[in-house]
Amino acid sequence: MGRYTGHADAVVRPRTTDEVAAVVTLCAAEGVRICVQGGNTGLVGGSVPPSHPDGSRPTILLSTARMTDVDEIDIVGQSVGVQAGASVATIDTAAGRAGLMFGVDLASRESATAGGVVATNAGGVRMIRHGNTRSQVLGIEAVLADGRILRRWSPLVKDNVGYDIPGLLAGSEGTLAVITGVLLRLVRPATGAEVAVIALRAVDDATALIGAARDAGLTIEAAELMTDAGVTLVHEHGGRRPVATAAPFYLLLEVSGTGGVQDVLLGVLETADGVLDAVVEPGPGRALWEVRERHTESISRSTATPVVKLDVSVPIHALGDAVADLEALAGSRDHRCRPILFGHVGDGNIHVNLLDVPPDDADGLTEAVFAVIAGHGGSISAEHGIGRAKSAWTHLGRSAVDLATMRAIKDALDPQGLLNPGVLFG
Amino acid sequence: MGRYTGHADAVVRPRTTDEVAAVVTLCAAEGVRICVQGGNTGLVGGSVPPSHPDGSRPTILLSTARMTDVDEIDIVGQSVGVQAGASVATIDTAAGRAGLMFGVDLASRESATAGGVVATNAGGVRMIRHGNTRSQVLGIEAVLADGRILRRWSPLVKDNVGYDIPGLLAGSEGTLAVITGVLLRLVRPATGAEVAVIALRAVDDATALIGAARDAGLTIEAAELMTDAGVTLVHEHGGRRPVATAAPFYLLLEVSGTGGVQDVLLGVLETADGVLDAVVEPGPGRALWEVRERHTESISRSTATPVVKLDVSVPIHALGDAVADLEALAGSRDHRCRPILFGHVGDGNIHVNLLDVPPDDADGLTEAVFAVIAGHGGSISAEHGIGRAKSAWTHLGRSAVDLATMRAIKDALDPQGLLNPGVLFG
Ligand SMILES: Cc1cc2nc3c(=O)[nH]c(=O)nc-3n(C[C@H](O)[C@H](O)[C@H](O)COP(=O)(O)OP(=O)(O)OC[C@H]3O[C@@H](n4cnc5c(N)ncnc54)[C@H](O)[C@@H]3O)c2cc1C
Ligand SMILES: Cc1cc2nc3c(=O)[nH]c(=O)nc-3n(C[C@H](O)[C@H](O)[C@H](O)COP(=O)(O)OP(=O)(O)OC[C@H]3O[C@@H](n4cnc5c(N)ncnc54)[C@H](O)[C@@H]3O)c2cc1C
Repeated sequence: MGRYTGHADAVVRPRTTDEVAAVVTLCAAEGVRICVQGGNTGLVGGSVPPSHPDGSRPTILLSTARMTDVDEIDIVGQSVGVQAGASVATIDTAAGRAGLMFGVDLASRESATAGGVVATNAGGVRMIRHGNTRSQVLGIEAVLADGRILRRWSPLVKDNVGYDIPGLLAGSEGTLAVITGVLLRLVRPATGAEVAVIALRAVDDATALIGAARDAGLTIEAAELMTDAGVTLVHEHGGRRPVATAAPFYLLLEVSGTGGVQDVLLGVLETADGVLDAVVEPGPGRALWEVRERHTESISRSTATPVVKLDVSVPIHALGDAVADLEALAGSRDHRCRPILFGHVGDGNIHVNLLDVPPDDADGLTEAVFAVIAGHGGSISAEHGIGRAKSAWTHLGRSAVDLATMRAIKDALDPQGLLNPGVLFG
Repeated sequence: MGRYTGHADAVVRPRTTDEVAAVVTLCAAEGVRICVQGGNTGLVGGSVPPSHPDGSRPTILLSTARMTDVDEIDIVGQSVGVQAGASVATIDTAAGRAGLMFGVDLASRESATAGGVVATNAGGVRMIRHGNTRSQVLGIEAVLADGRILRRWSPLVKDNVGYDIPGLLAGSEGTLAVITGVLLRLVRPATGAEVAVIALRAVDDATALIGAARDAGLTIEAAELMTDAGVTLVHEHGGRRPVATAAPFYLLLEVSGTGGVQDVLLGVLETADGVLDAVVEPGPGRALWEVRERHTESISRSTATPVVKLDVSVPIHALGDAVADLEALAGSRDHRCRPILFGHVGDGNIHVNLLDVPPDDADGLTEAVFAVIAGHGGSISAEHGIGRAKSAWTHLGRSAVDLATMRAIKDALDPQGLLNPGVLFG
């Protein structure tokens, strides 16, 4: 993104959990702060050390780049143990060889790491089907702020013995412990999937269509919204238009089922409201997926100024209104930028990309977007986390008591405040 | 169960969250301890106050029995807000009127409460399909140990802003806060479900069959294991035998799909190993379900001594061996009791019921069962929690660092140790 720079007094690249523990023990003894970095694909600055280091307390960068082991797949138990630095793509490939897949997928798959997706509780394109990253975590190994190693590592589906520490570390953005290993749940790939891109009149038609597909017994594997502006941009950069008919919105829908999936899907499309056109492809539907996946790249190539990228979510029923309000905001006299919205629509998740934003308007625009989202009861962070980018705005989505409770947990587990200073708590 | 008795200096039955907050604030000021009680259906003594009260610190029982409000269903957002004392059956009935259902179901549904299932992170017969109770929690309202009200209440699927406090309170068994309300996710009922009971030669045949059904594209709605001893017991108490052929094991399987479900299921049964006989019923299959649901009642009526009931789980691959070891243990010269095993087999969860146990052998037998389970890498609590019953054995499934981390969180959020003394930490 080119937005975050920082300073580290040293970089350590441990190979094993014991090495991580040794490093953290030393840091704890000397009061050295630690910024944890996985694949460095995070979009909120959490993996970059602070740029204004506190002179009295040095900061090191701890990278998991060398911790890339992937254990043998447990096919019956549908799980795999990995080191924190293993990439999502590596894990998924290993799972694929065993006829399974990792339930988390995102466009940063080649670089994003197991530790990173767990630390940020990443979402991604398969979340509507397989849940967030937190729900893929069967076990965890982590080094606490004082150097002790916590290991809860068993492939049990059910294990109700006290607090859900793995679930607490998931989404904690490296502020409570350094994750060194994860025991991940694997899932079975869909059978008989069909991919469609559907030209739609309105956002709410997409929501209704997803509901109708579910009612017809189809399993939703993915549901991604695109706008005409986005599809046109991808087209300008060499991508093809997925559907002949131009429409305000396009829904990429991947569905599966026991059989007759295409017939059931066509039946749903025929009776649904707002469908202007549609194209259906059997199998992985790569050509259709490509239109969605090329959005980020096309956006980067379309603007000279840094893109204002905000990952937000709203309750499903507010999705149509929120999208309209965001487009109106971008076009308003105060701002005048080019909005490209897309996102994991089945989860109420919108990725807001604002192009051609005058640099001095970036902060004001961010505030304005958050105000729209808060007004619809939404979240300022759907899946990317808070990092350093959004720590000033956590009060928009969390009460004072809630934030104080988080702070109490942080203080209990990292009393010296050594782990990821500046992340989450500002 | 008749196993737990206790003493409370007072019982309070608040109606509102503010009343709960007022009670807890007063208790915090005076150092009064609080035992929280929902439907009182828990099987590990967590909802019963300690029997040997510490003279210097009085204990009250806080019951949620009067907090039974259920809000209007949000059909589009598939969620409902409820007060902590609303029963699972009430919630499910309300959801049903809106064409939805609550993803948690268990035989105690008439009495078990929202607060109770969340506090224990209950499992139940639909967990294989819809996940544990924790994953139904979209939002939570709770009174902290000092009387402050924490509220995180938004029907967002994605909301990555800091630590997962609702997930931490889920499964905390009332030791961190009094849950006063829950915003619950609702799910769509299955379409075209078929229920089968399959007579099987071995436990591992059940696991393989579930895998084969999934591979064929079927959605597993429930997968419950029964043994010949259990089915015979139910038959002795007026239930019918589900399948003509006697077999060591029976699998109740409920599956759904887009269409042709029965044909797909029959195809799976024809090629699966170890299938001795099977009967398939379309629709809810109540007659087949009844055999499974009557187990608890038949067990209670079949023994004069208290039943030793233990809810354990093992990794799926160890299920067959664990069941064999448990049956051998019960029949061994040292113990000689009657084992009735059943459970949510798709999750590796076994409910161990031991009948005709000499009262002075109950503790020894419990230890012996836990040793078998720990030997298979299993959990001493799959879904019922630790409560007071199992707090002496948490070290079997959790490392010292893990337990110390839980204790640090407990101390941070309830420094006076007022909430549910004796539960979880012993
Ligand atoms: C093209 C593109 C597409 C993307 N798509 C999605 C998407 O669909 N959904 C989504 O959720 N995100 C998406 N992201 C964001 C990003 O990929 C995720 O946040 C990812 O989880 C970050 O993983 P990482 O290994 O790169 O972590 P980093 O960026 O290195 O770190 C992210 C945070 O996690 C912490 N952390 C990393 N490793 C550890 C560890 N071992 N222990 C403790 N803390 C650790 C860091 O300190 C930091 O706070 C996308 C990013 C890009 C560039
Ligand atoms: C016939 C039968 C079948 C069962 N089947 C299953 C099953 O399939 N799966 C399963 O998981 N369990 C099962 N159970 C166990 C039991 O029903 C569950 O543990 C249930 O979640 C308890 O709910 P409750 O409202 O009765 O809670 P209680 O028994 O009143 O309390 C349970 C624990 O939660 C705490 N608690 C209760 N309410 C709150 C609150 N508002 N705030 C904070 N803490 C609170 C209590 O202090 C206690 O520690 C079964 C029980 C019976 C009798």
